[in-house]
Amino acid sequence: MYDVQKIRADFPILGREVNGKPLTYLDNGASAQKPQAVIDAVTRAYAEEYSNVHRGLHFLSNLSTERYEAVRGTVARFLGAGSEDEIVLNSGTTEGINLVAYGWAMPHMQAGDEIVLSVMEHHANIVPWHFLRERMGVVLKWVDVEADGRLDPQAVLDAITPRTKLVAVTQCSNVLGTVVDVKAITAGAHEQGVPVLVDGSQGAVHMPVDVADIGCDFYVITGHKLYGPSASGAIYIRSERMAEMRPFIGGGDMIREVHKDSVTYNDPPMKFEAGTPGIVQIIGLGAALDYMMDLGMEDIAAHEADLRDYALARLGGLNWLQLQGTRPDKAAIFSFTLDGAAHAHDISTILDKKGVAVRAGHHCAGPLMDHLGVTATCRASFGLYNTRAEVDTLVEALELAHELFA
Amino acid sequence: MYDVQKIRADFPILGREVNGKPLTYLDNGASAQKPQAVIDAVTRAYAEEYSNVHRGLHFLSNLSTERYEAVRGTVARFLGAGSEDEIVLNSGTTEGINLVAYGWAMPHMQAGDEIVLSVMEHHANIVPWHFLRERMGVVLKWVDVEADGRLDPQAVLDAITPRTKLVAVTQCSNVLGTVVDVKAITAGAHEQGVPVLVDGSQGAVHMPVDVADIGCDFYVITGHKLYGPSASGAIYIRSERMAEMRPFIGGGDMIREVHKDSVTYNDPPMKFEAGTPGIVQIIGLGAALDYMMDLGMEDIAAHEADLRDYALARLGGLNWLQLQGTRPDKAAIFSFTLDGAAHAHDISTILDKKGVAVRAGHHCAGPLMDHLGVTATCRASFGLYNTRAEVDTLVEALELAHELFA
Repeated sequence: MYDVQKIRADFPILGREVNGKPLTYLDNGASAQKPQAVIDAVTRAYAEEYSNVHRGLHFLSNLSTERYEAVRGTVARFLGAGSEDEIVLNSGTTEGINLVAYGWAMPHMQAGDEIVLSVMEHHANIVPWHFLRERMGVVLKWVDVEADGRLDPQAVLDAITPRTKLVAVTQCSNVLGTVVDVKAITAGAHEQGVPVLVDGSQGAVHMPVDVADIGCDFYVITGHKLYGPSASGAIYIRSERMAEMRPFIGGGDMIREVHKDSVTYNDPPMKFEAGTPGIVQIIGLGAALDYMMDLGMEDIAAHEADLRDYALARLGGLNWLQLQGTRPDKAAIFSFTLDGAAHAHDISTILDKKGVAVRAGHHCAGPLMDHLGVTATCRASFGLYNTRAEVDTLVEALELAHELFA
Repeated sequence: MYDVQKIRADFPILGREVNGKPLTYLDNGASAQKPQAVIDAVTRAYAEEYSNVHRGLHFLSNLSTERYEAVRGTVARFLGAGSEDEIVLNSGTTEGINLVAYGWAMPHMQAGDEIVLSVMEHHANIVPWHFLRERMGVVLKWVDVEADGRLDPQAVLDAITPRTKLVAVTQCSNVLGTVVDVKAITAGAHEQGVPVLVDGSQGAVHMPVDVADIGCDFYVITGHKLYGPSASGAIYIRSERMAEMRPFIGGGDMIREVHKDSVTYNDPPMKFEAGTPGIVQIIGLGAALDYMMDLGMEDIAAHEADLRDYALARLGGLNWLQLQGTRPDKAAIFSFTLDGAAHAHDISTILDKKGVAVRAGHHCAGPLMDHLGVTATCRASFGLYNTRAEVDTLVEALELAHELFA
């Protein structure tokens, strides 16, 4: 039984007020709040068990290493990876995709080679590929979304040519909430010998993930969106791809031997974790994923589906509000603009006065904004602790904003 | 008045036991413990003030942004930088030096160009340059240290040729404790038009730093060695060098506009901070630097100088112990081997039974190990909370190890 009030009590910040009103936190797409279990894991690591990892032999170093390395298994379980050796621990999606761009794509691509992207990718899954375009002449091929925000898997596959070296696509749009059939895309791309990177930055938050079932080559997650610490994250890399990669960040831990005239590298996945890692953040990430798995990813998804249906109905009833992304099977992420001259930023500011935290702007999705013909939207994005009552609070605050700007 | 017992009480982990003995933590060179002020700053950020930064307009986002951005000023003050726009916040030295390697050196160097390094650099200040050697044919030129561990600034300057594009040198050896006259090196290198990177990963921990006085182009620090959170750090980059750099990590926040066929980048330093940053770690880093500055860097240095003198005298009295690095003005970092067949790892294990945490291994300094003709040493590295009594505990434990292996 999913008891959302009991769950809310696990998140200390949800009890606070903002501008004299109870906090209605609907900015989960940007970053999620942290349960006490995560805060406690971080505090315990610093106050009782801290040391650097891997290179020590003393008690605290062994303990810290054990706590850190256990998370590799937790992430593998969370993502359905066959082996924890396919998990590189890092600071999140941005680092993960840059690792693929620098470590796999750059040495594997030449001028004229192509990367297929959807128009609703987040800048984290765009800018690293623009680097390859700027520096190497790689060609970016964009696939549009349909009017309701759907991405047709066949349209992605149709964009593949003999020059295509990679398909990089989100599992869930951070703006539209659209859920993408990444399994169908991967199956079709693999038939043509093209690897697939899935940006799971939003997807892994809202639905059970099984990378073995999806079959993708790379799957990136961001810890701070998964109720974990800032600058925590991981990337699943299929072992065949991992073997093809050269190191990205150089430093300690990722090497075997360093001499004046030579260097040899550690085995994967360590080869891709340079320097002292984010020890405590990763331990906190483990606590966050355990928390989510204890709640049950299916149950979280069911709770959020209920919120989505309710919010779609309530927001759909506001004829002065234009919702972007209307698929009934989308995640509970709602981007919208209002009639009249009201700028998204002004709406966000009004909502904030009522304690409602939403985001306004381009949401790190420039090409999608161009496609939609807008410069900015407001976005209300829901998480596992949100409630129907908070949908009502949002709608009331929007009605107030509409009155003010009408 | 520097009251070390009062200071120790600020660090909760120092009250714990290890293997039934009070913890004697002498592994500060690998990572330092955290004062309650840092732990509290992290907890408060997550439990009361958390949100993503920069892109939001709601209360928590503004608060979080304010807390995060304030640390840029704290770091600038800590390092003596003229402007906080010369500070890039990141995850530490490894990321900082890779930023310089990818963002500045790669686009500025060609095959045959040279980088001058000392033989006592840490792998973080070696492996990124090996990447340039492997991938571009850049030449690494090594400067040896003298028998007592001293690095002669003139020897570094003598290694400069018309092909030299960068000098990259540590301010303080993590193995020998040697303090390097980076100001003299910078002055001489600049006379020949060669920029200088200073690895302050250890230096900033043990002495007051003033980058304006040093005059260097790049200065990197690691937060977790500065009593701050894991995966926190920063790099000072002289504005002229910053203007010459291309982006390294691509993603959100470091861009101005992203379209299908073009991308424009944010102004420095934001141009070099991609994606959601390590918000809470950076806030914790600010608390750590404030803690150190409140104690006073001169006073910390004086306390550690006393520990160094005492430890040099006591360890110097053990005629079966070979100390590496014997400069009287070095930092309180002591690497050593023992007579007989005892491997450094075995010594470390014995010490651990007495609650003494030291490190054993190559200390991420392969070329220095080659130079010293050893494969591993034990290293006891002191911090601001260590005491003379802990030097005694170390010596007693070493005497026991000596007896066991003699």
